[in-house]
Order: sequence, then C-alpha cells, then structure tokens
Amino acid sequence: MTKHHLPATPSTVHWGYFSKTLEPVLTIKSGDSVTVETITHHANDDYDRMIAGDTEAEAIFLWTKDAKTMRRRGAGPTEGPFTHGSGEGVGVHLLTGPIAVEGAEPGDILEVRILDTAPRPSANPAYAGRFFGSNPAACWGFQYNDLIEEPKPREVVTIYELDMTAPASVQAVYSYRWTPQTDPDGIVHPTIDYPGVRVDHTTITRNDSVLSGIKVPARLHFGTMGLAPAEAEFVSTIPPNYTGGNMDDWRIAKGARMYYPVAVAGGLFSCGDAHASQGDSELSGTAIEISLNGEFQFILHKKADLPGTVLEGLTHPLLETDEVWSVYGFSVANYLSELGPDHQTEILKRGSLDTAMRDAFRKLRRFLMTVHGLSEDEAISLMSVAADFAVTQVVDANWGVTGSIRKAIFAGR
Amino acid sequence: MTKHHLPATPSTVHWGYFSKTLEPVLTIKSGDSVTVETITHHANDDYDRMIAGDTEAEAIFLWTKDAKTMRRRGAGPTEGPFTHGSGEGVGVHLLTGPIAVEGAEPGDILEVRILDTAPRPSANPAYAGRFFGSNPAACWGFQYNDLIEEPKPREVVTIYELDMTAPASVQAVYSYRWTPQTDPDGIVHPTIDYPGVRVDHTTITRNDSVLSGIKVPARLHFGTMGLAPAEAEFVSTIPPNYTGGNMDDWRIAKGARMYYPVAVAGGLFSCGDAHASQGDSELSGTAIEISLNGEFQFILHKKADLPGTVLEGLTHPLLETDEVWSVYGFSVANYLSELGPDHQTEILKRGSLDTAMRDAFRKLRRFLMTVHGLSEDEAISLMSVAADFAVTQVVDANWGVTGSIRKAIFAGR
Repeated sequence: MTKHHLPATPSTVHWGYFSKTLEPVLTIKSGDSVTVETITHHANDDYDRMIAGDTEAEAIFLWTKDAKTMRRRGAGPTEGPFTHGSGEGVGVHLLTGPIAVEGAEPGDILEVRILDTAPRPSANPAYAGRFFGSNPAACWGFQYNDLIEEPKPREVVTIYELDMTAPASVQAVYSYRWTPQTDPDGIVHPTIDYPGVRVDHTTITRNDSVLSGIKVPARLHFGTMGLAPAEAEFVSTIPPNYTGGNMDDWRIAKGARMYYPVAVAGGLFSCGDAHASQGDSELSGTAIEISLNGEFQFILHKKADLPGTVLEGLTHPLLETDEVWSVYGFSVANYLSELGPDHQTEILKRGSLDTAMRDAFRKLRRFLMTVHGLSEDEAISLMSVAADFAVTQVVDANWGVTGSIRKAIFAGR
Repeated sequence: MTKHHLPATPSTVHWGYFSKTLEPVLTIKSGDSVTVETITHHANDDYDRMIAGDTEAEAIFLWTKDAKTMRRRGAGPTEGPFTHGSGEGVGVHLLTGPIAVEGAEPGDILEVRILDTAPRPSANPAYAGRFFGSNPAACWGFQYNDLIEEPKPREVVTIYELDMTAPASVQAVYSYRWTPQTDPDGIVHPTIDYPGVRVDHTTITRNDSVLSGIKVPARLHFGTMGLAPAEAEFVSTIPPNYTGGNMDDWRIAKGARMYYPVAVAGGLFSCGDAHASQGDSELSGTAIEISLNGEFQFILHKKADLPGTVLEGLTHPLLETDEVWSVYGFSVANYLSELGPDHQTEILKRGSLDTAMRDAFRKLRRFLMTVHGLSEDEAISLMSVAADFAVTQVVDANWGVTGSIRKAIFAGR
C-alpha cells in the first residue's frame, strides 16, 4: 500500500461539478491510501477565521477585479453574460480531485474506506490551532419559505467552533443575517446564490449571543464524495446520484466504507463539502461547513469478482459500517438518465421524500434478495421488523431517505 | 401511588376506535400506576399459538354464527348490510381501556411513564411459556402495489417467536400466504380487511423455511397509545393524531415518557397494538404484532402549571427518553379538525412524508423556541446541525416523521 498526500491547491480542486472530462490530479493503485485535503466552499463566510493566512485557501478563493483563480463554479455556462457568475453556481461544492484508480472501468465498484478525518486549523495567528465552520440557513433550506419571525424570507449564517477535545463538540460563536454582497465583477448577490463570494463584514451585524450554553457532539464527515458520472460532461454537485456525490449522510464517517459504481475509466473520485456536524435532514440547507482532511483507502472491485459478494448487482452507493449496511433512496434514482437533457433544472422540481422512500425500499429489497438470498416475502417482513429508514436530506434537490439494516442480525446465517 | 391491574377482558377492551363516549373501565388518581394487559388484534393469524387456552383471549375473539363478543370493530357503521362487518374495520386495533384520570380536563397534559413491558405467554400447553407474534405484509403496506415476484399482489403472514433471554430477540417461525377467509357471518375476506378473522389453517400453506438463521433484537413497545379525541364520537385507530394513538414509534418503550394533550374530561387513555419489534417505517403495514402487558404510571399536568415547563404550549404528543425529546410530524397535523366531516376517508388520500416532514419541522421549531427560549434563527441552525428526522411509518394513512433533539446538548444552558 502506497500512501499519498493530495493537498488542496488551485490545481487540485474543482468547484461545483463532477466531470469525466477532468484530468486526474493523482493516479493510484487499488489498495493505496490518500490523505486528501479539502477546503469548505463556505470559508468566505468568515474570511478571517477560515482563509486568512492559509496560503492555499487564499489562492483558491482569490477573486479580484483582475483575477479569479477558480473561474468556473458550477456545471452551468462559462460564457457570459452571467446572472450569478461563471458556472452560474449550478453546483456549489469545492471538491478536491479527481483521483483515478488504475484499471477502474465501468461496471466495477470502488470501495472507499474512511480511515480518518481531521480538521484544518485556522492559519490566522489570531485563531491559531482553532477550527471553524459555517452553517448558513440558506434560500434552498427547508425553512426558507416557512418562517414565522420577521423579516422574511431571510438567510442567516451561524459560525461554529469545533473543539477536538474528546469527545469532540461544536458550539456557535456568532451569527449574522446575509446582506446583499457585491462580488469583484460587480454582480450583486442578494441571496447566497453563488459560492465563494466573500462576505464583507462591514455590511453585516454580528450577533454574539447565539445558542449560548449549547454544545453539540461533533460528527465529522464529508457531505460530498463520489465518482464522475458518465451521462454528462459537467454535472452539478448538488443532487446526489448513482455515483454518490452530495449524499450528506453523517454516518459516512471515520471507520465507514462506501461503495460506488464506477461509471467512467479510472472512476475519478472527488470529495469535499466537509461537515463538523449535521442532523438527519440538513434542514437549513447546509451543515456546519468546515475544512477537513480525509485519509482514505481505495479498493477496486472488478466486475467479474462481484458475484457472491455484498457488491453483487450494485448500481448505486452503499454504506458499510461496523453496525449496518445502508442504501440511499433518492427522489429520482438516476436523474441524469431519467430526466432527459434538462436534467439539471428538472431535478429541482422533483424533491420528495415519498419517492425517495420508494427508491430506498426498492434498493434495500434488492440488497436483501440478491446479497442475502432472501425471497421477496422474507425481505419485506425483515424490512418491516428490522430495517430503519431515516430522512437523509431535504435540501439537495434530489432528496434522500437512508434505509439501514443491521449486520448482526445475519450473524447466524 | 396506588398500583392497579387492568386485565384484558371482553368488558375492558374496545376494538378499532377511540371514543369519548366510552365509560372508563378504571378511574385512577394522578401518580397511580396501572399494569394494563393488551391482546394483539392479529392473534387469530395463529389461533393455536396466540389464543387457544387463554380464557380471556378466547372470550374476546369469540365469534360464531350465533355469537360475536366484540361486535363493533372500527369506527364505521354498526348497522348492516356490511361490506366487511360491524364497524367495517375502519380502525383495527384491539385496545384496553379507557382509563380515566381524576381531574383531567381539556388543556391539561397527561404524562404516561412506561415503567415496564412484558409479553403474554401462550396458554396452549403445546407452547407453554413461549411468546409469539404475527407480521402480516398487508394490503395497506408500502410494498403491496410494488411487488416483483408473482403472484401479485399478495399478502403474506410471518409468525415470529420472541425469546426473552437477554438480550431479547425475535426469530421467524413460519409464514403463509393469505387466502380468502370466510367469517362466521358468511362474509368472505379476500384480503386482510377486517380484524380478528380467524385464519383457517387448513386453507393455507405453511412455509417453515423462512428467514432461517436471522435473529432480530427485540424492541418491545406499544404501537397504539393515546387519549380520546374531542372532535368525533368514534375515531378510527388507524391514523395517529394530536392525542396520540397509532404512533408506531418503537422508541416509545420501557423507560420512556409520553405526553399527550387531554381533549376530553378524564383523558380516557387506551393502549394496545403491541409490538415485539418494528423498524422505522413499519413497511409491510404491521410490526411483529404481539400481546404485551404494560406497566404505566400516569401523571396529570394541569394547564395552569404548564408555563415554564417542557410542556408549555404543547398541542401534540411528545416523547421524552433519557436521551432525546421527540415530536411527531403527521401528513395532516390534526386531520379530525382539518379534513371536515369526511375525515375518515379523506385522510386515506393524504399520506405523505413530505407534509409529515413539514409538520415535524414546525413542531420541533416551536419546541425549541417555546421551551428552550431560542430565537427562530437559533432553532433552525440547531435543527440543521443536531436534530435527526426519521421515517416513523408509511402505512397508517396519516404518515409520520419523527423529529428528535438530544437532551445532553442543553446541559450547559
């Protein structure tokens, strides 16, 4: 096993999209491990705490009237005139990668073992060694059109600090209401409609009395991890899909293994959108968005070797932890192939837990029948008495329901 | 504290409905405890294991051409001609009660502490001391119109045995496909459309090779517990509502406390629909339906005493365990008052996790704002980073999403 280190630099990150057209920034062999640095796309919500002094973060976020390091942000158009900016923010997550795995081909499964996760400390001497993240309650959140206090609607950003003293926890530091922000190209952002816009703190009012005394256990994880799909050249990072992506399940954490179908040669793994904590639903539209390093080991399972294993017939992401196997139901199981050429806009109309529950049921049934050799009737009875379905997220266009079955119940089989 | 014992007998049970018109079978004082016997409405899926030799169960289920102990089963019509039978199976759960609490009035909250749960042993000497339950995959299950194996659609009953040796667990014993059953009044039941019909085992084919080697941890709980609503005289037990009822959350178990709004004088608590285990979703339409005794303590919280407590402003069921507070979102928050006179049929069209998620969000927001004094922005951020939303059930007409927040996060407040 070779150990690699992949820093987050302007040449190793891509913003807002997965793409089979990207050249790999690293090519590895099956069995290798990689420590991948990721930087949160919300770092500019508090430049001082999350960017200042961090050479690579400064370079990635650099955007002046004359220069914009990461021009394309999203899978949208890159020729103006722009409503929001190049890429149009059709996809928002800053991802590190892609990593190619030698020999990976469509039909194979890539296993990603999450060996460790570690936060990236603030490089600002004023906050040396401390860890910060941002939780926007955004316009795509479940609450946005259902607020009770004035003014409405509104977006609110809450900055959290992560304390890694065991057991790791997070506490709010301060919050502010989003104000229209003008980017260096002169485009005004009345809402959080384009990633990486630096918030001018002279325009906002800090609320330092927020969630006082409340301490939340940390759940370090990557919200977005996955492979490049085959169906389109540039694919928004927002909707999760059959190759993974923006799954936003906090259980995809240290100690877990994720299995992803390979759709293009090399697989092309990217990750980012790291979270210090998140609840099932990611209600406000985001978690505590933070910069994490992830140590991953990659195992390639060739198509011919899948029969008779837990991966037989797998056409979607699968989670394995010490306790459970989990499948992910989506509002639209494979929106890229099901929704036609306008899939990027069509999927925005399809978010529903009802169809996600349907998809989770079907995926878990298939898993129990194919992998565990149950009849359909056995699978359905077992699901009713022993499988748990949770609301993964209601904010990523393609909403999610996670279906989990405990591994221990099969111990005697 | 006075301890009471409430046996399940023909005169202490009611079948398929909550009703403010019922005379209490027991009246207690706040602080008293009651051991309540319940008998599962699915006992006749296997008469030999779950009824034979059990004097009270035999009496309750007695139904011959000349006699039917429990005539009304459901909130429907009791004058024929019947499609299914008296009460029409508009509501199916066999409940013990109601228990009145002295002094309980609308506006008060009744706390029910679940001190213990214990299974009712088979009284058939052939199965002495053993515990059995039934899991039908029924026509109201999430799978019914989405089956892949033939014949379809179909209903399948799986009989499970509960082993109370710690840690308690369940295993399947056998299964059979439902066949049309003719009741003593001559009505044929092609599907499971009326509760308590005795399955003639000479008409079914036993499958003894079912879920072999699979052992599921037990989750003893009551699927249905709650108070009589005020809005109608007879209310189906199927849709859960603001006074509780068919909540089907396995976390409402030993050690938990449930809080219910009192809607009528005395509260009128009934319970039943006990389960040996259930997963989040109750996918097949039922859990492992079993007969349990529950030991409950009842604490009445008067309306005037609620401000400043966790119960302030509570208008719906609330769960408290050692770890969490949970609220229950329904597809329709209060279907009895919202859906008009045809509420019993209208609610059948409204099952949706999307609206249940909306309701759970609103209820948890209110709880955090009213009880924990958070601003709306604080509540939303906290929910996004620390609250978990689960699929309670997708089979009880009024579908459910449970929203939970851990108590420990408030320890420093």
